[in-house]
Amino acid sequence: MKLDKSKKILIVGLGLLGGSYAQSLTRQGYYVTAITRKQSTIDYAVEHDLITKGSAFVDPELIKEANLIVFALYPHVFVEWIKQNGHLIQPKTVITDVTGVKECIVYDIQAMLPDGVEFIAAHPMAGKETAGVEYADEKIFRNANYIVVPTEKNSLDTVELCGDLGETLGFREISVLSPKKHDQMIAFLSQLTHCIAVSLMCACDAPDLERYTGDSFRDLTRIANINDEMWSELFLSNRETLLSEMDNYRESFEKLYNTIKNGDREEMREMMRLSTARRKKFDKKA
Amino acid sequence: MKLDKSKKILIVGLGLLGGSYAQSLTRQGYYVTAITRKQSTIDYAVEHDLITKGSAFVDPELIKEANLIVFALYPHVFVEWIKQNGHLIQPKTVITDVTGVKECIVYDIQAMLPDGVEFIAAHPMAGKETAGVEYADEKIFRNANYIVVPTEKNSLDTVELCGDLGETLGFREISVLSPKKHDQMIAFLSQLTHCIAVSLMCACDAPDLERYTGDSFRDLTRIANINDEMWSELFLSNRETLLSEMDNYRESFEKLYNTIKNGDREEMREMMRLSTARRKKFDKKA
Repeated sequence: MKLDKSKKILIVGLGLLGGSYAQSLTRQGYYVTAITRKQSTIDYAVEHDLITKGSAFVDPELIKEANLIVFALYPHVFVEWIKQNGHLIQPKTVITDVTGVKECIVYDIQAMLPDGVEFIAAHPMAGKETAGVEYADEKIFRNANYIVVPTEKNSLDTVELCGDLGETLGFREISVLSPKKHDQMIAFLSQLTHCIAVSLMCACDAPDLERYTGDSFRDLTRIANINDEMWSELFLSNRETLLSEMDNYRESFEKLYNTIKNGDREEMREMMRLSTARRKKFDKKA
Repeated sequence: MKLDKSKKILIVGLGLLGGSYAQSLTRQGYYVTAITRKQSTIDYAVEHDLITKGSAFVDPELIKEANLIVFALYPHVFVEWIKQNGHLIQPKTVITDVTGVKECIVYDIQAMLPDGVEFIAAHPMAGKETAGVEYADEKIFRNANYIVVPTEKNSLDTVELCGDLGETLGFREISVLSPKKHDQMIAFLSQLTHCIAVSLMCACDAPDLERYTGDSFRDLTRIANINDEMWSELFLSNRETLLSEMDNYRESFEKLYNTIKNGDREEMREMMRLSTARRKKFDKKA
């Protein structure tokens, strides 16, 4: 299957990410529909030209006509949805997702699907500290990374289709990782950073801090504004891997702590130089 | 003394901050001169209209004519400079600074100055991950915080003058803190955040991380690109206070770690909600 404009795309779950997928694809001329919980979300999405039509119940017609279904749901909701409605998905349909953890869902979902339906997992590394379709904004994909997460059950064609979707949405870099490798990467790059921001924010209750702050604290704690329902699920779904990354980080923090405690300036500067060299690779390309 | 355009302002140390002070004040019509180590820096600053004139040696004439002197030097360089050249400063001159630590320098410098010369400490909470006068940019002050740090030796007039300077430079919020309180605040808001970013960056040597990252990691580690000479000095100049803030943070991180380890989702969400509520106060006003 090729991602061309004859393909009908169904988005399940019109939140910030689902809504942004819909916006980008509709604007580019794709036929996009949606299934989501609230009728008001569907109304909003139709009114704002994010989708052609949609349904607040699991409409078998929308599922049947779709060639590609994108699930933008919380992990456990996604699994539950497939358990209940997976049989409605037609052979030759490809399904993908945006879920932030993979090992704990990908194999289960692939095992549950009807014959001829292929699930290719993906993780768009884009978001905002706001939830809901009204914040949908295709610009969040620009310059961002997109990870395709295949298993042995996936065909090369579908891996390519999934990468095409990422490119069509405007992502800058498309990578391929196994579920295990993905979850390790994400534990370090995303989950640990959220743990750090939350811990820092909870560490000090002095009033008026915002009057004295500089941008370093502001930038570091941007993600301390966090959706507790979603992130607690993501943390627990990737518990062992996350704990292991937290351990590595604690060790590194401890090492720096000791250089300060012992006045070991040379060792401290060595860490800072390593940090500076590594960080340079993360500068965004223009 | 009032900060009006009859006042002659001398900047000692034309780096990123000194250069940005010079740029802002010169553009607003103040007479600004500079003393800095390299003649090439002076040449650049004159050519780019940051200063009217300057000197690469300690020119007694520039010091004599100045009504206000701003020191933008590393802490130990500042102390050393006053030790060697403080006697050249004329009575009724006010001096201020941009130094990131206060307790360990403010009292010493006030004690060293000639009679009639008043030092009012200040900390502009603005910067960039780039050093040098060629990055001078007055825009870094917009929307930023500025802290005046008086001791008992300072007059109310001078505290006001120093606040005027902050306002003139375009800072959004001017606050007043004691040296001790300032150093605590800065240990938490600025030094600890740099410790975190450096530790995180040193914690993982997996290759290609930048291909998989999202903006949360990028924003959190922006300051991991760090001037090791300056920051190691700042950390060690505020050692006990910084270690104590690092302890508080470690405790908070440990608490979150245990909620994940024990699968205590309710406690985890409680921390996330506290974090979210506290973070909201840091949103920049438009």
